[in-house]
Amino acid sequence: MSLKLYLAGPEVFLPNARHMLDAKAAMAREFGFEPICPGDVTIEPAPTRHEFGLKISAVDEGMMNRADGIIANLTPFRGIAADVGTAFELGYVCAQGKRVAAYTNMTANHFQRTREFYKGEIAEGPDGRKRGPDGLSLEDFDMIDNLMLHGGIERRGGFIAVHDAPPDALYTDLTAFRSCLDWYASR
Amino acid sequence: MSLKLYLAGPEVFLPNARHMLDAKAAMAREFGFEPICPGDVTIEPAPTRHEFGLKISAVDEGMMNRADGIIANLTPFRGIAADVGTAFELGYVCAQGKRVAAYTNMTANHFQRTREFYKGEIAEGPDGRKRGPDGLSLEDFDMIDNLMLHGGIERRGGFIAVHDAPPDALYTDLTAFRSCLDWYASR
Repeated sequence: MSLKLYLAGPEVFLPNARHMLDAKAAMAREFGFEPICPGDVTIEPAPTRHEFGLKISAVDEGMMNRADGIIANLTPFRGIAADVGTAFELGYVCAQGKRVAAYTNMTANHFQRTREFYKGEIAEGPDGRKRGPDGLSLEDFDMIDNLMLHGGIERRGGFIAVHDAPPDALYTDLTAFRSCLDWYASR
Repeated sequence: MSLKLYLAGPEVFLPNARHMLDAKAAMAREFGFEPICPGDVTIEPAPTRHEFGLKISAVDEGMMNRADGIIANLTPFRGIAADVGTAFELGYVCAQGKRVAAYTNMTANHFQRTREFYKGEIAEGPDGRKRGPDGLSLEDFDMIDNLMLHGGIERRGGFIAVHDAPPDALYTDLTAFRSCLDWYASR
């Protein structure tokens, strides 16, 4: 039985979503895995947009329930953090006790990105925490994203790949995705 | 046995984190619930920042494992989406089949916030999807955030409260939090 891997990430939003999902699935099959991709199943029409969204949620959760593990693309999306849908899915699969791997195509870590968000205006408060001008504290834990995501993967023996993709290939470069496949194959 | 509720959200980053966590916990106790808050347990020192972050992750996951349900504060954080740590936690608790409630202190929904992110420059493509100037598609499902979060709550019979908090009380207004407690109490 080949390992079933849920391929999570913001690829579904790309103009060439179908192409990217197919490329990731093909690469996973090369390694002998069975890819499970959101976007692979045609969702039946629904009376409202809202109900259509609920159907996609149901299909994607069903896919995770059938998977043995996940490869989550945590490359920052529309801001300094991972796509929240992917973060939800990573937490879901962690709770199920399944295998977890993730990657990011940006080498600047969570702290560096948050510092950049504040244009470097960071001050250390009396409590020893670094804070932005808005008073909100910054996590500085040498992690690729919020500690629940990075910690959730690392603490259960998962794998994290970091790759410096060219800006114009931030969501299409599959180098780090392949590293995750390599890791699954070596286990 | 009183219901144990994990109180997830970006409050831990606030300048008055301790005060806010205590206020939420006190309100939960008024309703007869046992609040479980990240930030409540003193984390032992660790040799590196990274290992300290991992310890927090372990403590917070342990708290979720002990909880019967969650109230997740999904108010947008440092951008247009919910805090990714909170999104992870919501997915985690959904997978455990526990009770779920969430709130946001911003009435603009996911689509409206993403449209604002693109300064209104949205075009509908040949595939019928609305896209920003970067080609990325927008979810338009009348949901408070990404469909996995909103759908994950609604599909399992959870509760979502939306409140129009004043901008200076975006992370401190507890009106919607109280609505979630009301909902738990009425079940």
